[in-house]
Amino acid sequence: MEHAISIRVRYPECDPMGYLHHSHYLQYFEMGRIELLRAIGHSYADLEKAGVFFVVVKAEIRYRAAAKFDDELVLRTRIAKQTAVKIEHTYELKRGQTVLAEGHTTIACVDRGGQLQAIPEFLAGNDEG
Amino acid sequence: MEHAISIRVRYPECDPMGYLHHSHYLQYFEMGRIELLRAIGHSYADLEKAGVFFVVVKAEIRYRAAAKFDDELVLRTRIAKQTAVKIEHTYELKRGQTVLAEGHTTIACVDRGGQLQAIPEFLAGNDEG
Amino acid sequence: MEHAISIRVRYPECDPMGYLHHSHYLQYFEMGRIELLRAIGHSYADLEKAGVFFVVVKAEIRYRAAAKFDDELVLRTRIAKQTAVKIEHTYELKRGQTVLAEGHTTIACVDRGGQLQAIPEFLAGNDEG
Amino acid sequence: MEHAISIRVRYPECDPMGYLHHSHYLQYFEMGRIELLRAIGHSYADLEKAGVFFVVVKAEIRYRAAAKFDDELVLRTRIAKQTAVKIEHTYELKRGQTVLAEGHTTIACVDRGGQLQAIPEFLAGNDEG
Repeated sequence: MEHAISIRVRYPECDPMGYLHHSHYLQYFEMGRIELLRAIGHSYADLEKAGVFFVVVKAEIRYRAAAKFDDELVLRTRIAKQTAVKIEHTYELKRGQTVLAEGHTTIACVDRGGQLQAIPEFLAGNDEG
Repeated sequence: MEHAISIRVRYPECDPMGYLHHSHYLQYFEMGRIELLRAIGHSYADLEKAGVFFVVVKAEIRYRAAAKFDDELVLRTRIAKQTAVKIEHTYELKRGQTVLAEGHTTIACVDRGGQLQAIPEFLAGNDEG
Repeated sequence: MEHAISIRVRYPECDPMGYLHHSHYLQYFEMGRIELLRAIGHSYADLEKAGVFFVVVKAEIRYRAAAKFDDELVLRTRIAKQTAVKIEHTYELKRGQTVLAEGHTTIACVDRGGQLQAIPEFLAGNDEG
Repeated sequence: MEHAISIRVRYPECDPMGYLHHSHYLQYFEMGRIELLRAIGHSYADLEKAGVFFVVVKAEIRYRAAAKFDDELVLRTRIAKQTAVKIEHTYELKRGQTVLAEGHTTIACVDRGGQLQAIPEFLAGNDEG
């Protein structure tokens, strides 16, 4: 399960060095997850309306090269593992052939109150984790 | 009714020119409103829990001089006018004696669903607006 | 001179009310200006490399209705007036037929040091401002 | 070498779940590094003016519990290891006695062009890394 999106770096996402600030990579990764979900027929906005929330419990990022304002990047998002309540994704962010960053996150399924709940059947997929 | 807070400009709030990005001034103004409210004994977080929300319906900003990373700024927030459902604030953001920006916003009191509601009595103050 | 872009509202751009935070409208307007520029053949990134910068000196926004996470919006950006050193833009942000916000900004052309400079000939256009 | 700062969670830093968005933790960690540096007598703004930049090359975060708008948090930042060109920091973010997050970052010293350079003597400290 893998999905690619393209992202153009916005001006206020860049810092005084002229680089995409390192915190925004996590926002890009989240966009990757949301679009991967949409690609398989689900809307994260609708999930939240139905009381299904995902929170990030762990994140790791390795920054390989800097991105700059107006760069057109490609982000590949892949489900690496899935259990009853958690999903692990990996990410590769590239500009052309240059790898800018690699990431790994673990998200957990919670209810409106923040309590852990099972990932709904329709999201369970065929990935046996 | 006036209140001053100091704000130190954060690195990711600054753009490739090295300047505080112009969008963040509205976030500073919001901090000014929240701290003005706290200074008169109210917590905006508690208001929201009680179903009292304020949304910005109009904003105007004049940018006079740039702020840079790590600058220590002083923001003065003043209630200019208050009616049954709206409050107008004015703002002056300075670094030392230099005025960096002046602002004016109108906020409206709404309920959880976004419908206009009267500002609670205890916030009505003495300002006859 | 008018240009339209579509923007999908991102999750971290939305606040605890679930609404697109009012500060982000200025970031969307900036995207509108950058894409309007690109549509007429210029890259703002390249302009900055050539020592041509634009800073916002004035902004006005009227918020008509809230945007939410995952909404697909259309932003229309128009040059309203242009002088030797300044450009005024107007903006209309819509979701379907609903107008969410209207904006007006004035940007000024400055050099790397922040000093006012004439807008380059090739950007002067036919608009007599 | 350890330093603690307090941070109040801002409204636009919180997402539709009402939680501090997970990307902002990296911005808090950066504030922790900058204030740790200030506590030992150095200004990161001045370092950049002198051509000394630090870029994040690796980051890890474990999210233990959610932060909400207006929460007053305490962030402890510690230098875990320092070599000729890199510094590793660890972070603990708490609200009262509750640990909200733990982090680990590696930053590398680069010049204005992004090329690796030795950390200046005056920052080398006594930590032998």
